[in-house]
Amino acid sequence: MLLEAIHHQPKSHYAYAYDRETVHIRVRTKRDDVDHVHLIWGDKYNFQPETITTQEMKKVASDRLFDYYETEVKPPFRRLAYAFRFDKDEKQVYYNELGFKEGSMNSSGIGMLWSPSGMFEFPFLNPVDVNEPPEWVKDAIFYQIFPERFANGDPSLNPEGVEAWTSDAEPKRDNFFGGDLQGVIDHLDYLQELGINAIYFCPIFEAFSNHKYDTIDYMRVDPHFGDNELAKKMVAEAHKRGIRVMLDAVFNHSGYYFPPFQDVLKNGEKSRFADWFHVREFPLKTEPELNYDTFGFVASMPKLNTEHPEVKAYLLEVARYWIEDIGCDGWRLDVANEVDHQFWREFRQVVKKANPEAYILGEIWHNSNAWLQGDQFDAVMNYPVTNSILDFFAKGEIDANQFMGRIQEMQIAYPQQVNEVSFNLLDSHDTPRLLTVADGSKELMKLAALFQLTFTGTPCIYYGDEVGMDGDHDPDCRKPMVWDESDQDRDLFTFYQQMIQLRKQYRALRDGRFRFLSAQEGTAYTAYERSDDKNTFIIALNSSDENVQFSLCDLKDGTYERVLIDG
Amino acid sequence: MLLEAIHHQPKSHYAYAYDRETVHIRVRTKRDDVDHVHLIWGDKYNFQPETITTQEMKKVASDRLFDYYETEVKPPFRRLAYAFRFDKDEKQVYYNELGFKEGSMNSSGIGMLWSPSGMFEFPFLNPVDVNEPPEWVKDAIFYQIFPERFANGDPSLNPEGVEAWTSDAEPKRDNFFGGDLQGVIDHLDYLQELGINAIYFCPIFEAFSNHKYDTIDYMRVDPHFGDNELAKKMVAEAHKRGIRVMLDAVFNHSGYYFPPFQDVLKNGEKSRFADWFHVREFPLKTEPELNYDTFGFVASMPKLNTEHPEVKAYLLEVARYWIEDIGCDGWRLDVANEVDHQFWREFRQVVKKANPEAYILGEIWHNSNAWLQGDQFDAVMNYPVTNSILDFFAKGEIDANQFMGRIQEMQIAYPQQVNEVSFNLLDSHDTPRLLTVADGSKELMKLAALFQLTFTGTPCIYYGDEVGMDGDHDPDCRKPMVWDESDQDRDLFTFYQQMIQLRKQYRALRDGRFRFLSAQEGTAYTAYERSDDKNTFIIALNSSDENVQFSLCDLKDGTYERVLIDG
Repeated sequence: MLLEAIHHQPKSHYAYAYDRETVHIRVRTKRDDVDHVHLIWGDKYNFQPETITTQEMKKVASDRLFDYYETEVKPPFRRLAYAFRFDKDEKQVYYNELGFKEGSMNSSGIGMLWSPSGMFEFPFLNPVDVNEPPEWVKDAIFYQIFPERFANGDPSLNPEGVEAWTSDAEPKRDNFFGGDLQGVIDHLDYLQELGINAIYFCPIFEAFSNHKYDTIDYMRVDPHFGDNELAKKMVAEAHKRGIRVMLDAVFNHSGYYFPPFQDVLKNGEKSRFADWFHVREFPLKTEPELNYDTFGFVASMPKLNTEHPEVKAYLLEVARYWIEDIGCDGWRLDVANEVDHQFWREFRQVVKKANPEAYILGEIWHNSNAWLQGDQFDAVMNYPVTNSILDFFAKGEIDANQFMGRIQEMQIAYPQQVNEVSFNLLDSHDTPRLLTVADGSKELMKLAALFQLTFTGTPCIYYGDEVGMDGDHDPDCRKPMVWDESDQDRDLFTFYQQMIQLRKQYRALRDGRFRFLSAQEGTAYTAYERSDDKNTFIIALNSSDENVQFSLCDLKDGTYERVLIDG
Repeated sequence: MLLEAIHHQPKSHYAYAYDRETVHIRVRTKRDDVDHVHLIWGDKYNFQPETITTQEMKKVASDRLFDYYETEVKPPFRRLAYAFRFDKDEKQVYYNELGFKEGSMNSSGIGMLWSPSGMFEFPFLNPVDVNEPPEWVKDAIFYQIFPERFANGDPSLNPEGVEAWTSDAEPKRDNFFGGDLQGVIDHLDYLQELGINAIYFCPIFEAFSNHKYDTIDYMRVDPHFGDNELAKKMVAEAHKRGIRVMLDAVFNHSGYYFPPFQDVLKNGEKSRFADWFHVREFPLKTEPELNYDTFGFVASMPKLNTEHPEVKAYLLEVARYWIEDIGCDGWRLDVANEVDHQFWREFRQVVKKANPEAYILGEIWHNSNAWLQGDQFDAVMNYPVTNSILDFFAKGEIDANQFMGRIQEMQIAYPQQVNEVSFNLLDSHDTPRLLTVADGSKELMKLAALFQLTFTGTPCIYYGDEVGMDGDHDPDCRKPMVWDESDQDRDLFTFYQQMIQLRKQYRALRDGRFRFLSAQEGTAYTAYERSDDKNTFIIALNSSDENVQFSLCDLKDGTYERVLIDG
């Protein structure tokens, strides 16, 4: 038994409250190294041989190096002491906070009045600490809108020099096409027809650029998009159709023309906003090196000092206003991992007070555990899953076994309730479009989307993917939406429509259990199961050019019928 | 190279801000498995072959299974992308967020506009997130006082039926000896003579029992101890002598006679305090099973509902009052891991606002990472170190090599700044006394104390240990302080006095670097070094009955002189 491979960390994604009465416990072993794993648990104030429970843990995931075991416990007094037992052949190894011991458990230590000193502990399950994402997000199918490019509903608002909205229009870093909120309202019926039930809006606040990530006024809809009243109307119209609305909070940095930054540029250290940014010396300069902090090295995006009480008060009022007064249903947080944790903690308090059902989604491209403890975000944009899906289905760079390993590694990386509302996108305004990544192959694109739409977590479709839009890196991925039906891929639209319908129809496809049934080395096909009490789906996907036949074992008994066949 | 043993977790005690400009990065390998480990780092928005830095990491700790490597980085723009390289013979293995790769680095992933997608990230070092414990705690040597048993300075306050304060008095669960705050004031000169510069008080608030962990009124000094004015005077008198004062916050549960609980007992669900506790059904009963949550299974210690706004407001005002109005310097938090995290986060804000230099110390006997991220506690009571010291020096249950492993495991378990102010106690009101654990051996007791007083972290001496008091489990460890000099062990007092003086004299012994020089398997002796820029101490301790000679390699050049010899 390889002890070096065994891993557990109390009070982490290896031991967390799933809900107000359930604790999930996980442990890692070397792959294919042990026969059985048991959790030994009891009340921390009554941990006796006669009161403890020994229950077998289930292998729920494997990656290249490791197996992961999991089990759940409902401790009657909401507190837990526990240890693990690993069985291999005739050998039994116990593992607790003191380490490993063969044949029996350690419990040494002095003066432990009520508690078994050597055990791992889940000290108390306090409800307020439970990460409880809003239930509706499990049922949501998001659609991402880049407002300047979705639809032009009110030409009177067009920016100067607006370009023609044609199917072959060429988006540039600085050109405009006149998309606006009225355009969105006009096409809500289209979105309803597609079947989505939530919109993720890229920024809609007044800003200089076409992407609006360089905010000028966080309290005002960009005048080229409309006004706050229209935003309120748009939200109400969306809600009427059962569609929720999430906005983009660009709180890491402001735009160049944000008045407080302009004031600092003009008045330097005498500006009453001098402390609103991270300035290393006055006056501000950009050559030979920036002397103030920015997003990346972008001089026109000065980093906001989110520790400053006035900045905090301003941004938290922004957070409250759009949720409470305008009626939005969530915030997507731009560059979320560069803003201080303390700000996000206060942000969560404000937002959840305004609407306990609001969804708080961080943009983080990397491991995000530090933000997912229940005090900051509900979930993050799930780029590691994005990359795995694209690498397997769209690019063919990894085989089914590697795919399974990377998917399962992410299922173990976060608490289960986070996975259930993780934001699973395949492309966005920040990446090439799915069809382009799939090198124009509609078949591969469909496989990737099919996986996305039948996987654990909340899928998001980037506007226009459903009608076959392509596009390389920004700005190419930000073309005006194709509205001319003759230029739309209606077959693809129907495919998305059907898949969305299927997901909405069957709970098993939304928050049912996910399990791989086939993921062999060297293969380009995979199969997996999603199931709940009522239904079990078996989904087999082959991204090679060849027909394959393979058998699946360990299936549930019952009669299976074909619900979707894709040639 | 055993890949299964290699471990790193971004944004954890493996990668944290040490101060406002320094990031510590750690990584784990199998013990004695690799030749060199390098950190490869650069700015996350400019991670190019020509801009990255490759620096060797230092092996800073080893335990039975693993080696731990560490290095520090001062990223110019306060953000970091990084990976590791492990060298073994001719082989080079790279390790980043995507996993392991021989010979070169992975960096796959789509659409990463500015960032190397596959690297680990420390996204931004925001000052407010840095865990910055108060500087004074590094210099502190605490003395723990159990107020009912330290000194009786005002017999007019004696409880009814008080027993005689004699050297052979027998403490019971429910008897009283009349200790009070005037007694503490009267003996501040004694404490100054001993040399300590901080006091940790067990609870002083009005309560029923002799230990006062069953609070009746959190805003009032127990009338048998004095009153709030006297507490204020005591704090001022202590401060005059350079002695800081830490109180005990028993916020997990109240006492049985806490008026709100009495009201709930009397009025049941109609009580206006009905939600102040965790009641499963009314009326409250204790048989056949408690129907409300308590500390352990102690019916007279009902768990407070620290999620309730009124309870929160009350306890947070308590937290503020004793720091701001009475002048105390810190809080020790009783049963800290059973109170919700959200409460402690708000508690920290209130306490640090009242006094940014206040020390917040959690009572947690287990791994405490979840409370040490900078948002809750400065440190915890370091029981894993307590147990290691006792097991090696006092009980002889582990050898020097196991001792080193357990000590070093704890040095890696938390960020360095937490270790620097970890509360290193050898005994307390909750455990048998050190002399008793050492089976009456003053020599072994001295070795344990010598290690404690020359180790990283803040030592605490339990009242009376310094004059040779013994005592088994509670209540035996709570005897009245021996004040009759003829009953005191003055040799021991002098030993503590000298060791405290030495620690206060040399910064190297307080926050210098700690390094083992000898810790062989099967031996009962060990040697270690503590050093700073000015001084290097070599400390060799032998807990066996035999004389041993052993050589130390890798010592710093220079002249060493003997500062302490203990026969």
